[in-house]
Amino acid sequence: MNSEDEIVAGHLQELRRGSVVLACLSVLREPQYGYSLLTTLDRAGIRVDANTLYPLLRRLEKQGLLTSDWNTEDARPRKFYSVSAAGHRVLERLTTEWMRLDADLARLLGGKDS
Amino acid sequence: MNSEDEIVAGHLQELRRGSVVLACLSVLREPQYGYSLLTTLDRAGIRVDANTLYPLLRRLEKQGLLTSDWNTEDARPRKFYSVSAAGHRVLERLTTEWMRLDADLARLLGGKDS
Repeated sequence: MNSEDEIVAGHLQELRRGSVVLACLSVLREPQYGYSLLTTLDRAGIRVDANTLYPLLRRLEKQGLLTSDWNTEDARPRKFYSVSAAGHRVLERLTTEWMRLDADLARLLGGKDS
Repeated sequence: MNSEDEIVAGHLQELRRGSVVLACLSVLREPQYGYSLLTTLDRAGIRVDANTLYPLLRRLEKQGLLTSDWNTEDARPRKFYSVSAAGHRVLERLTTEWMRLDADLARLLGGKDS
């Protein structure tokens, strides 16, 4: 990677970081375990690695936005995460803000900034 | 602020952070000094405070994405920033990625995640 690529990579990471929380809350309206969430996000084009995602899930659970349950019916017990009532409210507020930000940014990038 | 408001505020800050770089590069296709950039962003709905913006401008200049010039024609000398050739290339790459991220996220939030 040359230096310009590194600079772009750094800014891209910042650009993606905030959207990962939104993506997780959105997907977890249906319960999923960590690895299945990872593949769902990946299929959806949201790039995040396991070392980022798993701590994020624990952080969101600690904040009360996700709840978790062990599913022990399968041969291999798995921890399923889903959005709590608070998580639904937060998702709704973040989505509203994101849509506003999105429209503002689209206007700026289109050059019509007044 | 109750605790849920604080949690939302934290996530919002992350969501906005990456977009500020994109917004700055976009606006600075036309040279502007710090304060005028701040008001342009504010009018465009991109909320960022001076304590965040000024260090960011210095960081982007250090990365070679912005150049600056003192305009001493007015009574009060002002430092004008504008996007460099490298900054134009980076803006283009970040914009492409942002549009992709945007479309992916819109699909997820709309619930059509497959």
